Amino acid sequence: MMLFNKTPILFLFGVLAFSCNQQNRSAQTLETESQEPVLFAKGEKIANDNFTGTAYLHSMIEADSLNPNSVGNVTFEPGARSKWHLHPAGQILLATGGVGYYQEKDQPKIILRKGDVIKCAPNIPHWHGASAGSTFVQVAITGRQNGPTQWLEAVTDEEYHAK
Amino acid sequence: MMLFNKTPILFLFGVLAFSCNQQNRSAQTLETESQEPVLFAKGEKIANDNFTGTAYLHSMIEADSLNPNSVGNVTFEPGARSKWHLHPAGQILLATGGVGYYQEKDQPKIILRKGDVIKCAPNIPHWHGASAGSTFVQVAITGRQNGPTQWLEAVTDEEYHAK
Repeated sequence: MMLFNKTPILFLFGVLAFSCNQQNRSAQTLETESQEPVLFAKGEKIANDNFTGTAYLHSMIEADSLNPNSVGNVTFEPGARSKWHLHPAGQILLATGGVGYYQEKDQPKIILRKGDVIKCAPNIPHWHGASAGSTFVQVAITGRQNGPTQWLEAVTDEEYHAK
Repeated sequence: MMLFNKTPILFLFGVLAFSCNQQNRSAQTLETESQEPVLFAKGEKIANDNFTGTAYLHSMIEADSLNPNSVGNVTFEPGARSKWHLHPAGQILLATGGVGYYQEKDQPKIILRKGDVIKCAPNIPHWHGASAGSTFVQVAITGRQNGPTQWLEAVTDEEYHAK
């Protein structure tokens, strides 16, 4: 009789425990996706030497004779950053995920998070990249009407880690 | 003795059931957030008559003498859409959430989902908006160097619902 009374309870207990475990894992997955949703494709690993560390570029819009803007999605792995550089027609950055840095010459380093927007004036040397502990994803809108990006020196570790 | 054996099991059963319920609700919340993450602010309800239905605009970048682009986040409620209009320097749209429509004059209506990108050439009449059953969120990058947007007639229900 005790066996009859307990068995269904233990069975239900086991089913419930399994079910809970499934839901818990589901919640964790969603939480991870919610923290870093993939909005635009990651694209290809950047192979040139204009970046320190690992970064990816997905080109979404190429400039042409009718619209001078190129639009690209850039993903920086933790610690990765561009070299110092400037854009002759300026640039707009839209931060879409992670935590990153942006710095203009002789200005303090700015922390960027999802939803932050930067407008960089033409010919201002600057760099951008991920923080040391997080990836960083941004959309870059770059005017090409005044010529190509000019690449300068690498961002030193001292510059990168400066407060 | 039976009471002693059963009570802890029933107590644990109750705790587990409550815990499961909490996790289930948490997963549902995350699922909703994951489907429609808020990337940029929704902004203010658009008060002019260039839109049918309810739409919101958050202006993120204003055009100036150094950079001719304005960048805004537009949120359309289900069924809401712009009038037909054209941009003298063209426009780039980045779909960031929901399901929407984009149509150029004499072209079929295109369905837009998160991650889709549109390049609209200068002076091409077009409209964009949400689908009937979903909100739609987009970033609009609009060149202002050739003059302001020219607004045309409203999108009829027949045009809106056309396959």
